[in-house]
Amino acid sequence: MTYCVGMRLNDGLVFLSDSRTNAGVDQVGTFRKLSVFEIPGDRMMVMMTAGNLSISQSIRQMVSELKTEDGHSIWTAPSMYEAARILGQAVRQVHERDAKALADFGIEFNVSIIFGGQIKGERCRLFQIYSAGNFIEAHDENTYFQIGEAKYGKPIIDRVVTPATSLNDAAKCALISMDSTLRSNVSVGLPLDLLIYESGKLAVSQFVTIDERNEYFHMIRSTWGHQLKSVFDGLETPVWNATPEAQGNVLHSTNTSSQPVRVAPPCDVSASARDSI
Amino acid sequence: MTYCVGMRLNDGLVFLSDSRTNAGVDQVGTFRKLSVFEIPGDRMMVMMTAGNLSISQSIRQMVSELKTEDGHSIWTAPSMYEAARILGQAVRQVHERDAKALADFGIEFNVSIIFGGQIKGERCRLFQIYSAGNFIEAHDENTYFQIGEAKYGKPIIDRVVTPATSLNDAAKCALISMDSTLRSNVSVGLPLDLLIYESGKLAVSQFVTIDERNEYFHMIRSTWGHQLKSVFDGLETPVWNATPEAQGNVLHSTNTSSQPVRVAPPCDVSASARDSI
Repeated sequence: MTYCVGMRLNDGLVFLSDSRTNAGVDQVGTFRKLSVFEIPGDRMMVMMTAGNLSISQSIRQMVSELKTEDGHSIWTAPSMYEAARILGQAVRQVHERDAKALADFGIEFNVSIIFGGQIKGERCRLFQIYSAGNFIEAHDENTYFQIGEAKYGKPIIDRVVTPATSLNDAAKCALISMDSTLRSNVSVGLPLDLLIYESGKLAVSQFVTIDERNEYFHMIRSTWGHQLKSVFDGLETPVWNATPEAQGNVLHSTNTSSQPVRVAPPCDVSASARDSI
Repeated sequence: MTYCVGMRLNDGLVFLSDSRTNAGVDQVGTFRKLSVFEIPGDRMMVMMTAGNLSISQSIRQMVSELKTEDGHSIWTAPSMYEAARILGQAVRQVHERDAKALADFGIEFNVSIIFGGQIKGERCRLFQIYSAGNFIEAHDENTYFQIGEAKYGKPIIDRVVTPATSLNDAAKCALISMDSTLRSNVSVGLPLDLLIYESGKLAVSQFVTIDERNEYFHMIRSTWGHQLKSVFDGLETPVWNATPEAQGNVLHSTNTSSQPVRVAPPCDVSASARDSI
């Protein structure tokens, strides 16, 4: 399994990926899922992949070499949209080459990709690309994409990240989101690749591989859980069976008559139960 | 979709269920998924179901009437284990009756059940029952079960709930877990059924149906998100490129040399890119 998240902020882009791959629980490995395509001063693009590893690696190779009919490659594409289209084409070429053979062994052609970056003359852009080679772009109302084991780490991003979030805060949120995922799914694992891109730089701004010894991630892991627990403890306890005049945090007042769905026992049972009590 | 969670604490049991069902996004309804089987003073049992609604309702009907070869029903079973076994048998009978006809229309026989309660003379017990009628029981190391859309709301339970958690705190945690799920999946919806059972009572202790107007849930929804944001803001910002002597929250120090996986452009591209810059 995999967990990757990419965010598009006003200040730039944040990418975070884990590095665990597994084929069954007894075949677990570490593979980097984040790749950089960079020509400093001209373009900086990042691809993160989830799904079948052989497909992901073939796509990475294919997209770096692919030229379209009009002679463009991701190295010369005039826009991120065009680069995403070329990446989608690479996905389709790998599908054409491998899908049938995989299907013969009952293996689905299954890959999802986050692709983002900036090309000189354009703003930062972020895309999600599907197995069919089609893709969607992030915008201000939906400013991030996740692939792989996405659900555990989604609520915290939804509550915190907006386009105005700073790059460091977005990175902090991505790491908390990853922490929630690591705790809940053992097939997502360290080390993590974290890449930050400041809009306009046209080269990687910050990159770090985070392992067990990373001090900041260690702090996040211990502090977040601890503080969450304090907030939890600080929330008021529900008030049950409050009188109609009661104020505040009433979960159930005496004038609500809600009843659960009750399944009645057969007559003979209820009669004999009454007798025996 | 559905989200239900059941927790077994030292003090008793907590059950929370949403009430949305949908067959496609254009056929959304409200159905209660929590049912009570109760003979006050003798037994109190709760069943929550996720999956195909027609299957769930048939199981509810079937289990209330089913008698095993040895003459027991859930109304007379001497233990919760035996009651869970009878419920499993009801699942299998509905499977036998309906599965083939459903399969003819491409519909999978798909149901999952949380079942818990107390029978006089026993402690509280909590089970999860699968489509095949087999089941597992909660214990101190794994004190809760979720069915349906479980992942969004799992991290907060993992961080907070232990067997020693009070019933009110467990209910509070279940409501926060539900809030995270409601925010992330529109096919989980209000009203909620919340049932609390105090060990030894042998009757429902507290029950409330929570809708948009519920004051306590409203407080949870607004306060939790707000306070989470404060904790987030309070966490220190990562320190990049710290000198080797630097202390505290170092995400990346100058003496770490981690590099992303870089895909090199073909020779002709890198040469012409250099020229054009």
